[in-house]
Amino acid sequence: MPLGEREGDTSKSRFIGVETYFNKSMTVVLDNNIFLEKGCDFVVAPLMSPTYRPSLMQQFGSISVELRLPFTKSDLNPSAKIWNTKVIGKISEWIDLDSPDQTLRKDSETVLKQEIDKAAYLSLQACLLPTPKRNTCANYARCVNQYLQLKGLDQMQLWLRIPLGKPDDNSSAIFRTPADCWKIWNSFRLLCDHHSNLLVTLDNLNALPADNSLNSWYGEPVSAFIIHTDCFFTTGDDENVKHLSKNLQKSITYFLDHSTQIIISEDRVNYKEMEEYCFDTCSVAGTDHRIHRLHPYMDCVRSLYQQLDPLSERERSLFAFRDDLQPTVQPFKDTLEYVAYQNSDDDEKKFTKVSDLLGSFGDNELAPESLDGAQRFLKKDGISIPSSYTSFLQPVTAWKLHSAIKAKEDILRFETAYMAKMHNVARLAPSQPLFTFTHPKSSNKESNNRYRNLQFVIPESAVVHGFAGYFDATLYKDVHLGTEPTKATPGVITWDDHYFPLREPICVHRGSTLEVNFWRCCDYTKVWYEWCVTSPSPSLVHNCNARADCMWLN
Amino acid sequence: MPLGEREGDTSKSRFIGVETYFNKSMTVVLDNNIFLEKGCDFVVAPLMSPTYRPSLMQQFGSISVELRLPFTKSDLNPSAKIWNTKVIGKISEWIDLDSPDQTLRKDSETVLKQEIDKAAYLSLQACLLPTPKRNTCANYARCVNQYLQLKGLDQMQLWLRIPLGKPDDNSSAIFRTPADCWKIWNSFRLLCDHHSNLLVTLDNLNALPADNSLNSWYGEPVSAFIIHTDCFFTTGDDENVKHLSKNLQKSITYFLDHSTQIIISEDRVNYKEMEEYCFDTCSVAGTDHRIHRLHPYMDCVRSLYQQLDPLSERERSLFAFRDDLQPTVQPFKDTLEYVAYQNSDDDEKKFTKVSDLLGSFGDNELAPESLDGAQRFLKKDGISIPSSYTSFLQPVTAWKLHSAIKAKEDILRFETAYMAKMHNVARLAPSQPLFTFTHPKSSNKESNNRYRNLQFVIPESAVVHGFAGYFDATLYKDVHLGTEPTKATPGVITWDDHYFPLREPICVHRGSTLEVNFWRCCDYTKVWYEWCVTSPSPSLVHNCNARADCMWLN
Repeated sequence: MPLGEREGDTSKSRFIGVETYFNKSMTVVLDNNIFLEKGCDFVVAPLMSPTYRPSLMQQFGSISVELRLPFTKSDLNPSAKIWNTKVIGKISEWIDLDSPDQTLRKDSETVLKQEIDKAAYLSLQACLLPTPKRNTCANYARCVNQYLQLKGLDQMQLWLRIPLGKPDDNSSAIFRTPADCWKIWNSFRLLCDHHSNLLVTLDNLNALPADNSLNSWYGEPVSAFIIHTDCFFTTGDDENVKHLSKNLQKSITYFLDHSTQIIISEDRVNYKEMEEYCFDTCSVAGTDHRIHRLHPYMDCVRSLYQQLDPLSERERSLFAFRDDLQPTVQPFKDTLEYVAYQNSDDDEKKFTKVSDLLGSFGDNELAPESLDGAQRFLKKDGISIPSSYTSFLQPVTAWKLHSAIKAKEDILRFETAYMAKMHNVARLAPSQPLFTFTHPKSSNKESNNRYRNLQFVIPESAVVHGFAGYFDATLYKDVHLGTEPTKATPGVITWDDHYFPLREPICVHRGSTLEVNFWRCCDYTKVWYEWCVTSPSPSLVHNCNARADCMWLN
Repeated sequence: MPLGEREGDTSKSRFIGVETYFNKSMTVVLDNNIFLEKGCDFVVAPLMSPTYRPSLMQQFGSISVELRLPFTKSDLNPSAKIWNTKVIGKISEWIDLDSPDQTLRKDSETVLKQEIDKAAYLSLQACLLPTPKRNTCANYARCVNQYLQLKGLDQMQLWLRIPLGKPDDNSSAIFRTPADCWKIWNSFRLLCDHHSNLLVTLDNLNALPADNSLNSWYGEPVSAFIIHTDCFFTTGDDENVKHLSKNLQKSITYFLDHSTQIIISEDRVNYKEMEEYCFDTCSVAGTDHRIHRLHPYMDCVRSLYQQLDPLSERERSLFAFRDDLQPTVQPFKDTLEYVAYQNSDDDEKKFTKVSDLLGSFGDNELAPESLDGAQRFLKKDGISIPSSYTSFLQPVTAWKLHSAIKAKEDILRFETAYMAKMHNVARLAPSQPLFTFTHPKSSNKESNNRYRNLQFVIPESAVVHGFAGYFDATLYKDVHLGTEPTKATPGVITWDDHYFPLREPICVHRGSTLEVNFWRCCDYTKVWYEWCVTSPSPSLVHNCNARADCMWLN
């Protein structure tokens, strides 16, 4: 694959594509862009002439409309497999489904339907939807949602194109700030009920991205990142060696590491027809070669990919488990085991060890209950390893985890805790300590129930899908072990992150406070967590009476 | 039943009760309050001494705690039936489940559990929960929710006591305005996931309610209205004839008409023990009689009840259908019928009448499609009756309808339109016109699809459960027929209101705008509505592709 293959990289999904304009022959488009040069993996191509309007067609009589659809020339050439693997359908950019102009709105609905039907018939993997033109995008989202919800179309993704900033040409007044861009996307996906086949494609436009402009998009389903040729520059004499700014390099590196496709787009003003457009001549070792005009741009991206730090053997082995939800452990399912170490000096039981009982959320594998049971074997001045442990919470955007839970089609799965090697997430605020347990206990009447209220200030508007959970343990004196990101023990892979979902993702506005309540509850047979959000608006209490999830005591 | 019976009143649920204080013998409480006087239907009585604290008991050893619970003397006397029909359990008022004082919090949790367990064991119909003491009531709500979600307790309601204004004694800083009171209730029920057995009991305190102080409570599950004896006054010499202010009379009249119980409460400062407390002597026709001290207050409420406008025969026949959800009609399920009237003067078909096709939402029984079909029989200058019709929408709080849909345990039932004789609803803003159809059509190409965006300004914070739908039709010239509340045709009972629910009720803050989008969609086989909210925050699009509900064209 064109970005090159690196040792140990098991990812199959880092592709590079080019955005092209309408051409009646898709074969020519593909030949020019892919087959001749082997330079790119797919083309983003319109399926229909941009001048077509159903309302104009009707003036010539409704009967012939179907016959005169201005699609690309042939569905059979190229073959079905090529359509399926090499083409992303680009929905007509002029459509405006929320226009007050009824004719335009109806034309837009008709064309959207025709194009998506066509794309589905051709088994395309995805269509790129044009950027919404208005703040109110309810009708656009509704029509898209109608396709998303159709059972037969559930193999085809729909990618909504969202700019990363204000377009240069002032064509759109709705994208004043990066936050506006995210808000439009957020409205659109809420209207579509968080459908897992609705993704966002970020268009970098011609702007250099600001340092933090991508923050809002971590944890979101970013299918592709569009870079325009204008963003590349040359240094020195060689026109065929392209460079990118440090910020843009950083963005691309992030996306390459998060299964996001890269699309190179050339502005229409530079567009020339056919061969003239596609090929330049370059001289290598005194011999002239024809090369694709976009080749130098793709080379630039490819070299960024090759500069990525190679995955270590350990990372490689865990690659497949990124964002993969695992059930939590039932520590006592078989037998309750603990280990008592003897101090050889005085032959008295002075230590209980047991760090093996620590779960990814600290107390979630019943360390408190196990160590309570072991305490009677411990001498009065004995010490416990671990001597204490604390769980930590952090609000996250985690579209991938949310989608995976939604796919289970059981509402109680949103009230269940999971373990996951979180990768495609946005960590929205610094984590905060939640529950602490210290051993040995000063009194055996001390309860293992806990309740705590935490408040997180969220710097940028975001959707909160749930909470990441970590732990940090003091094993003995100043010896720590833990997964909390700012002080995680290096090289430790035994513990995944914990994940507590929310049944309804919560939208939190820039600078506002997210207040969350967590409980650790115990009865004679089980231990479980309950949780809820109380600000900005209250959620239900999740996992009431352990109805979805618990750790059994026997 | 003590409020008296009126001709034609089929309601069984208008009761009056008194709030009493703790007494070790419930038999004495009941004897004094109910059986001797037959004056009241139930007592609201504590089940446990207000001085009991589990933490104090534990100091005397944990073994004896269970044996020494300070409950009322006997569970068997009075009988189970009396407990079930005459007693509302009053949960200890001192409990504070969100206190930062851990001992108080744990005592509160323990007592709440013991009291609710006891009440469930005695088969009480309901318990009155004390007013939350803090803005943050997450732990209180969580503990209550644990009981609500237990399967065995689903016969017992829990009534949360909420003041209608700021308490006189400044004991609570959290209820500064009537809006604060509603907000606490709203948080509590959101945390409890809108459970249908969680209701609110409004405590009027000693204040005269302001003119609009009840507005926030229309459409909410108000189980009871507490009036304190201080609110009554006497005129003239007779101490035994009590009066209430006009505003309070109006409030009580509203509640009597909405199946809300009335509870008379005497302040604790006036409380005297036993017989002395309960009975006064009054002279009737020269003879002394013992009467219950609260008798005159109950008489006052009873007389308000008797002054209610009696239900007409028509209202009586519809009484049982109040807030009863009915499926919408399938007009073409059997055959498509229309009637063409002949004009006898020129023997040409000049009228189509067919108003029988008008549904409670105007076009929802396929009048547009029917009249389209009939139009070919109509002479060019013919007229149609109706000549036009418009649907209307209005946001409502409608807890009862929401609960009824939730009980169906099928999420798609929240994407279905219903018909209902709405009674227990708050109409949150003036209704607005939605879709208009005019006949005969100027062109047969004119589509019956519709799309409209409406914006409602909501004057007070409220929860929106969905939308009421009405219609208004112009039959011919200035002859109207319709159900829109401000211009409804008097005496028309053929049409119920339409109801469009929301899957997740939406909280709208005071003065903010609720933006809603409605679509009428048609394809070759069916007609259906889709709807969504886009402000204050977007909902999903309901009934996408008619997945829950449609009108079949054949």
